[in-house]
Amino acid sequence: MNEHIVSAFENELRGLSQRVAEMGGLVEKQIVGAIDSLIRADVPLAEEVRRADPAIDAMQREIEETGILIIARRQPMAVDLREVVGALRIAADLERVGDLAKSVAKRAIAINGQVSLPKVTGGFDAMARLALERVKRVLDAYAHRDVAAALEVWKADGDIDALYNSLFRELLTYMLEDPRNIGSCTHLLFCAKNLERIGDHATNIAETIHYIVTGTALAEERPKLDTTIFGAGN
Amino acid sequence: MNEHIVSAFENELRGLSQRVAEMGGLVEKQIVGAIDSLIRADVPLAEEVRRADPAIDAMQREIEETGILIIARRQPMAVDLREVVGALRIAADLERVGDLAKSVAKRAIAINGQVSLPKVTGGFDAMARLALERVKRVLDAYAHRDVAAALEVWKADGDIDALYNSLFRELLTYMLEDPRNIGSCTHLLFCAKNLERIGDHATNIAETIHYIVTGTALAEERPKLDTTIFGAGN
Repeated sequence: MNEHIVSAFENELRGLSQRVAEMGGLVEKQIVGAIDSLIRADVPLAEEVRRADPAIDAMQREIEETGILIIARRQPMAVDLREVVGALRIAADLERVGDLAKSVAKRAIAINGQVSLPKVTGGFDAMARLALERVKRVLDAYAHRDVAAALEVWKADGDIDALYNSLFRELLTYMLEDPRNIGSCTHLLFCAKNLERIGDHATNIAETIHYIVTGTALAEERPKLDTTIFGAGN
Repeated sequence: MNEHIVSAFENELRGLSQRVAEMGGLVEKQIVGAIDSLIRADVPLAEEVRRADPAIDAMQREIEETGILIIARRQPMAVDLREVVGALRIAADLERVGDLAKSVAKRAIAINGQVSLPKVTGGFDAMARLALERVKRVLDAYAHRDVAAALEVWKADGDIDALYNSLFRELLTYMLEDPRNIGSCTHLLFCAKNLERIGDHATNIAETIHYIVTGTALAEERPKLDTTIFGAGN
């Protein structure tokens, strides 16, 4: 390839990864909006989160199309190919994180006004902050192709699972205490599960960064705290 | 392209779609195993389902790698490109269905012996059969590139959501009736949600078949029954 083509190709790669970073920014905003709408029972904010989701889905499709075109036209090799494949994988994970945030927002709408949640908001706040931090840190690691930082996110996966398990037990307690809490606590159980799954996607993204930079997969087994009956995944 | 190359390319495409079909067969088996293990409280079967999951994940990665190689080497156009991209998308959905089946199996292990579920197994059986049928039918539609059959799966998405909502209400009732049911019913709520999500993936696959054959996307909005507070997605 001559220099002109190489640089056009590099621009394409850079453009693709910039779009992924932009998508990551939007998804972070969705997580914040979803959690705030839940904790503050802010229905208009929750509606805003719902309405913003299709744009994220469209972004994923656009990134996929662009990536496929780059592969077909440029036939990239080695790290360049992994860059493109990695962008597609990360966009797919981000799209699912967006869906999970939307789902939390929908549940915020569903439970609005039916219950006051002073007791559990602390647990949610901690879990949400952890999930958001993991997403932020892994997107940062992606921006700098920083495998060490990605590995740190990957290794920390157990933290959010531990918080999920304790929140799960807490919610069960409120349900046992007063059956009128069951309906809303069930919604909250699903919200907590969604936050945990957001953490799982951050872990996926960390694995993808590892793959992009090194060309090898991380070990099959995640560093999950999966010893309690509440950690049954998904 | 000369005939020799064309036929090699067609063989590659056929091989890719055959692998997706095989993966679909494995995933169907996982759904059956997961549900049977839950309904019959069959822990060894549930363990079998758990152990079978990594092979499905590996199959997805292999399909992805093969597909990317085909795109880079053959630079397919139009329907051929959509065939490859479609195979990757379907494999990604099947991998997630496999995860959801694994999750049901893990919960079957978690609730084993703690509770007898004669009352709800009917609802689960119906929901599981519907989810499985949708997966079977959409894989059949894929095997024949049958857009009409895919559209039927796509349109029927509301059925499983309706069953989910009624099962959800039923489970809430048992929790209200006797607080000792709360722990196990919560696991069952997540299992029901997972079956509903399996149905969603069948819908995704139907959309992908439509895209492969026609080159256009189906309308953004799914035919979802989403009017109750229990249909909050994810």
